[in-house]
Amino acid sequence: MRVALLTIGNELLSGKTINTNASWISNVLSLEGASIYRHLTVPDEKEEIIYGLDTLFCSKVDLIICTGGLGPTDDDITRKIVFDYFGSEDIFDDKYWKYLSDKFLKAGYPILNSNKSQALLPSNGDVIPNDLGSARGLVYEKNNITLMVLPGIPLEMKGMVSQSILPWVKKRIISKIFTFNIRTTGVPESVLFEKIKKIDFDAEAMSIGYYPSLYGVDVRISHMDKNLLDEFKFQVVECINIHIYTLGNENIENVLVNKLLNQNLTISTAESCTGGLIGHRLTLVAGSSEVYSGGMITYSNKSKINNLDISAESIRSFGAVSEEVALEMARNVKNKFKTSIGISVTGIAGPGGGTDEKPVGLVYLGYCDENSLKVKKFNFISNRKSNKIRTSQAVFNFILRMI
Amino acid sequence: MRVALLTIGNELLSGKTINTNASWISNVLSLEGASIYRHLTVPDEKEEIIYGLDTLFCSKVDLIICTGGLGPTDDDITRKIVFDYFGSEDIFDDKYWKYLSDKFLKAGYPILNSNKSQALLPSNGDVIPNDLGSARGLVYEKNNITLMVLPGIPLEMKGMVSQSILPWVKKRIISKIFTFNIRTTGVPESVLFEKIKKIDFDAEAMSIGYYPSLYGVDVRISHMDKNLLDEFKFQVVECINIHIYTLGNENIENVLVNKLLNQNLTISTAESCTGGLIGHRLTLVAGSSEVYSGGMITYSNKSKINNLDISAESIRSFGAVSEEVALEMARNVKNKFKTSIGISVTGIAGPGGGTDEKPVGLVYLGYCDENSLKVKKFNFISNRKSNKIRTSQAVFNFILRMI
Repeated sequence: MRVALLTIGNELLSGKTINTNASWISNVLSLEGASIYRHLTVPDEKEEIIYGLDTLFCSKVDLIICTGGLGPTDDDITRKIVFDYFGSEDIFDDKYWKYLSDKFLKAGYPILNSNKSQALLPSNGDVIPNDLGSARGLVYEKNNITLMVLPGIPLEMKGMVSQSILPWVKKRIISKIFTFNIRTTGVPESVLFEKIKKIDFDAEAMSIGYYPSLYGVDVRISHMDKNLLDEFKFQVVECINIHIYTLGNENIENVLVNKLLNQNLTISTAESCTGGLIGHRLTLVAGSSEVYSGGMITYSNKSKINNLDISAESIRSFGAVSEEVALEMARNVKNKFKTSIGISVTGIAGPGGGTDEKPVGLVYLGYCDENSLKVKKFNFISNRKSNKIRTSQAVFNFILRMI
Repeated sequence: MRVALLTIGNELLSGKTINTNASWISNVLSLEGASIYRHLTVPDEKEEIIYGLDTLFCSKVDLIICTGGLGPTDDDITRKIVFDYFGSEDIFDDKYWKYLSDKFLKAGYPILNSNKSQALLPSNGDVIPNDLGSARGLVYEKNNITLMVLPGIPLEMKGMVSQSILPWVKKRIISKIFTFNIRTTGVPESVLFEKIKKIDFDAEAMSIGYYPSLYGVDVRISHMDKNLLDEFKFQVVECINIHIYTLGNENIENVLVNKLLNQNLTISTAESCTGGLIGHRLTLVAGSSEVYSGGMITYSNKSKINNLDISAESIRSFGAVSEEVALEMARNVKNKFKTSIGISVTGIAGPGGGTDEKPVGLVYLGYCDENSLKVKKFNFISNRKSNKIRTSQAVFNFILRMI
């Protein structure tokens, strides 16, 4: 089943509201096996809404879902435009009006005349019930395409999709698409692509996508045949195994905290350039208090020396951003916090502080456990915020591979 | 100036990724006075991308911004389709290829053949530089409409919009809407509304909007007459002065770091439930190393006692989440890090750990400087991540009002 979404609203186009309705509807319909082919957003203007309906009714879809502009106020013009578009006569629904009036009274408000528009039925269409609000949805058919119109208030829209639209879609889905996600980090998209490309995806019309972000690259494969997907999944995993941190959708900090929990390990952190981000991300995971004792943010050299007992001599000889200091930081924080593992980060986040020898983005990561003391060097060439995020991701990835 | 956005990507249509690119671009362009008329999202498919270009080139807009599909892998098909659409010949840009190869080498990866597509110039179009990634943007003209094509990776896209597109738009904006933003925190939208509503906005058709988020509520007023806007601005500021932390768009951590810098003050942090978020946010501000020495993340009780010298007796008697412990934490971290100010946070982030007496969301914030030792209690009733963000915001707001 092919679906298009038409979301109506000035606040979406001005960027003041993020269009989470479109992604929410798309996600729940995709999970049922529908394919979303188009999202179109237009302003609360008659010509633009008509353009939206025209262009989507001319496309190869089975279902158009439209949201927004069904409220009782002046700027809610969708109902009237849709009625006109289909040449509907207004039928006043006395029963619904009575129901609405009672509902308003119960809530302590007398119903207003402006709500009357919400009790209108179309002569040649149908309505969709709305248990959580006063604006009912609309259903029309044209060119073998079904149009469903819903209010834009997320709570009401979601209730109506779950109650009425999903069952309608489920009945009509013929073939479902299965998807499998593989998460990698520390490797560019192009390197993954080179490794995976030897697999013949075209042979079985398997679809594969690469989704890069600051946190790594997700590789997503999908197909209508679940068994076939499983076969390909193993092939892909085999090709890029060393770069994978999880199969599925979990964040790396969740994967790490769970692995530490399973192995009964505790951890502490000594952060310089990340300034607390590593601790913050670990403590976003519910239950992290079982494994994460805490740590030090030693942002200044003075605090490295006075609070983490880094030798002033090391900083003088090698610099605060150096292998030696990273190692000392990891070892000292492990000892101070009496944890199984101590990790450290020291680097130049930018924009200032870089030199030819030690440029912005240079980061040393230190790791210390009972058996090993390791350091790794990275060169992230980006801005302050990105360098911090990439560093924290590299730290989690490094620990995952050490334990 | 009328603008349409064409965002390309299966992940947007399947709902796996929320289309924050569309809202971000719309927001920054709207703030410059542009009007966004349409958002269209299509899959990574040739016919759909061509449909998108066709339909937008037939609409009454001056600028089309297109994002997504400029990466080096097989599913990144936008560049080729756009070249074909405009009948562009490929010109291989040796200089850019050399630059890219060097950049990859520095990051520790040899450049791959699949990256070659990113060094192609169009014979009849132009490119937009990308300082934060390898895919440059494209610029074309047709029917008096300018098309700009950008990568979909938010960081790169944002950099390119700020660096190249915004200056281009600013030059071409004729009638501009002036906007003034007022940032508040720690106060609900409805309270601000009640205080502001006595001002007669309708008289001059002044527009006012309230934009709540976890960080507070922004109040934005706009009008085409700058003088009139200035008059109203003063009235609004007067009504809600005590809740404002800045006029403009700066983040509270920037406001705070600058105020500390101006007053020659230094600060250290002792974080429990925020787990490093406060340090992370402070160190997102370039130049924060002048004021922020560092701090302790004392997530476990043991680390509070052993590493921050909190008295075990206090924790036993009052609990780790208490006024007494918050105060001790602030005082001790100030002394350990020898800063002008020490601040602390201890609370229950959730979802576990709450009791009737001390529910999830209970947070104590401690503050210590040479002259005062203060504590403040908050009840945030939300999830773990939100509680951490709200707490960090409350901390920054509190310090701002103390110095």
